[in-house]
Amino acid sequence: MTITLYELVGVDAARPFSPHCWKVAFALAHKGLDFTTVPLPFTQIGAIEGGATKTVPLIRDGETLVGDSFAIALHLEEAYPDRPSLFGGEGGVALSRFIEKWANATLVPFVGASLLPEIHAALEEDDQAYFRQTREARFGGALEDVARGREERLEAFRNALVPLRAVVKRQPFLGGEGPLFADYIVAGVFQWARVISPFPFIAEDDPVADWFERCLELHDGLGRRVPAA
Amino acid sequence: MTITLYELVGVDAARPFSPHCWKVAFALAHKGLDFTTVPLPFTQIGAIEGGATKTVPLIRDGETLVGDSFAIALHLEEAYPDRPSLFGGEGGVALSRFIEKWANATLVPFVGASLLPEIHAALEEDDQAYFRQTREARFGGALEDVARGREERLEAFRNALVPLRAVVKRQPFLGGEGPLFADYIVAGVFQWARVISPFPFIAEDDPVADWFERCLELHDGLGRRVPAA
Repeated sequence: MTITLYELVGVDAARPFSPHCWKVAFALAHKGLDFTTVPLPFTQIGAIEGGATKTVPLIRDGETLVGDSFAIALHLEEAYPDRPSLFGGEGGVALSRFIEKWANATLVPFVGASLLPEIHAALEEDDQAYFRQTREARFGGALEDVARGREERLEAFRNALVPLRAVVKRQPFLGGEGPLFADYIVAGVFQWARVISPFPFIAEDDPVADWFERCLELHDGLGRRVPAA
Repeated sequence: MTITLYELVGVDAARPFSPHCWKVAFALAHKGLDFTTVPLPFTQIGAIEGGATKTVPLIRDGETLVGDSFAIALHLEEAYPDRPSLFGGEGGVALSRFIEKWANATLVPFVGASLLPEIHAALEEDDQAYFRQTREARFGGALEDVARGREERLEAFRNALVPLRAVVKRQPFLGGEGPLFADYIVAGVFQWARVISPFPFIAEDDPVADWFERCLELHDGLGRRVPAA
């Protein structure tokens, strides 16, 4: 039975960009599960599955609906134990939480703020109004003002990648020799950036860039199917 | 057979302070292994076990000598597979590397710089000369100058604890319901601080403080046997 992944898009339905939806797409591919995607703009998410969710990702797996990327990964791990593991054991589940919190604290604020105008530009008209209103309230300023100065803040962002850089210099993936959900948590953020913007969040000669390239190669080049912005 | 842990001390042999030695002490206790400690000043480390090492921790486990705290944890996991796991599976091993790199990048520089004069004060005379010379070369300034201003930098340090704080708010340990080596990696740093200095690296009302208290309770209060500075 095919799993349905509801995911976020803008004008171009072939360019999903949500980091959390990418985490799930990578996780489904990692498990070798067939899935179809339902692309949605922000303002249609509330109407799907009888109003089941306000946010995506959401998956339908048979009779089961699951939202939240980490919860989806846990569901897949439990429902498909014979497929390649997303966590490599209980320790991997617990420590993936740290990776998630690190990504949310260290990567998402700068990347998210930096992308605001370009995400806005990629959206349909109804979504643009929704996005501007909600994000300007959240960030406390005009989208363009929040993103301004990202060039000056880039060095600090790249410096904050030290733990990631140190690990992927000594092993191919955060997960070790092969990827785990922890890799997808972080790669999802950089894929969000890659699909939306040509801004060079990662320096070309950074081992993090090599790691991200390895992530884009995974699962028959799933991440690369969407060309970079 | 009892394992020997060579560990670093100052004038008071009952107050080991090295973060890396504490990681190993916690790991040995986690495995439920009997161990004896050999306290050493910096300047006697090179003489032990026929010049086997320049740094501690070093353990002797029967015929096997192992140095480096992470390598020791891996050795214990492999040599004593029937004891409680330090990693909770292969995923936990891989992701513990990230925790180590995060701690080394985010915690150790500020804590280490802040403690320099107090570590110096705790050492024997020969060690004091060695410590001042090597650390002043490493940090590029007098011990007292490097540590100066730690009060002003404390807020930034506490802010950098966000990922740790977020995890230990939702689960008792980084390792989940119970501790793993990942917890000891981070707790070792705070124990180093606790044994050497009364400086309040962690705010009293921080969930990180509660987590560290839980770590000090583990293994019959192993960490608490050395009173706080």
